[in-house]
Amino acid sequence: MITLYYAAHTCSLAPHIALEEAGADYATVRVSIAAAEHREPPYLAINPKARVPAMVTERGVLTETPAMLAFIAQIFPAAHLAPVDDPFAFARVQAFNSYLCSTLHVAHAHRMRGHRWADDEAAIVAMQRKVPEAVGACYDLIERDMLKGPWVMGDTYTICDPYLFTLAQWLEDDGVDPARLPRVTDHRRRVSERPAVRRAMAAELA
Amino acid sequence: MITLYYAAHTCSLAPHIALEEAGADYATVRVSIAAAEHREPPYLAINPKARVPAMVTERGVLTETPAMLAFIAQIFPAAHLAPVDDPFAFARVQAFNSYLCSTLHVAHAHRMRGHRWADDEAAIVAMQRKVPEAVGACYDLIERDMLKGPWVMGDTYTICDPYLFTLAQWLEDDGVDPARLPRVTDHRRRVSERPAVRRAMAAELA
Repeated sequence: MITLYYAAHTCSLAPHIALEEAGADYATVRVSIAAAEHREPPYLAINPKARVPAMVTERGVLTETPAMLAFIAQIFPAAHLAPVDDPFAFARVQAFNSYLCSTLHVAHAHRMRGHRWADDEAAIVAMQRKVPEAVGACYDLIERDMLKGPWVMGDTYTICDPYLFTLAQWLEDDGVDPARLPRVTDHRRRVSERPAVRRAMAAELA
Repeated sequence: MITLYYAAHTCSLAPHIALEEAGADYATVRVSIAAAEHREPPYLAINPKARVPAMVTERGVLTETPAMLAFIAQIFPAAHLAPVDDPFAFARVQAFNSYLCSTLHVAHAHRMRGHRWADDEAAIVAMQRKVPEAVGACYDLIERDMLKGPWVMGDTYTICDPYLFTLAQWLEDDGVDPARLPRVTDHRRRVSERPAVRRAMAAELA
């Protein structure tokens, strides 16, 4: 049994969707970022990084979205969420997800989490100002080079798709015009229509 | 045959070490960041993200350090660089490396690459000012919770070790006092003494 610790409107939606896609037997625990529950001792005992998502398994805790997504794909092979038996194809999946966590999500985080990297209020505002450009550049690359279509990796839906979908929820708030990203926005719409995605989102927003 | 595109003093040292540890048959191509070769068409044709490392394989190009490290571990199983047959243990390896790429490396990057996230010169200086604190907080967590010892994952050397070692090269320049991190610095010293690490570093600095 898996327990996913998640917060609404965060990247924890990606493993939440993957668990639904896999037909996993799992429970969820909502963590309120607004109430700073992620900084309280009960949650820090699960994830001392004070971030969501975290996943409690019978063998211990897992953190970090790309690692959790790969784990879900590996332990539910029947769901075919990643080419787990082909190291090269699997590495391509992992490279995509690594780009999302280390570059796209980071670019986005400068809008609301600038205090991680500067104390000065003017600097935090300066970071916010550049978010549309920095996030937009990531999406331009995804649109042009990385999203093969119809799914991220081509014909097969993988763990890259819910992750891109999750981050793409924030496009408009990040100041990026979706009209310049027809392939990304078409992908976002198609992922949103999947039953597993609807179930995960409904559960988070309930 | 694998060709690794690397630049000295960057995170490309991590897959370089892993290839050496694995006894791989590989070639290297040096990319000069100072000469901006990573922004020139020949390199952009390999990696449109304009970053190192990149790895050309007979099946295509791989990018992103965590993905490349996992790939090396998977295609050279005899080197035992990751618990590739145990999804949970493998996910722990991946989570560690994901933290390095998305949090520690990002905190470090605000010292010399602040222009990625702000245009304003004062903001870039404000980011640089916080690097010792932000990078230091990552290392405090690694020292206390994440580095099991003697290697990152415990008794077995894995792809986490060259990656942590590579980023820990920058501790002093990031303004973090190594004296407060006895376990991290002991790890760094022990990794530095491995023959594969010496070979990779000598090749990069030749």
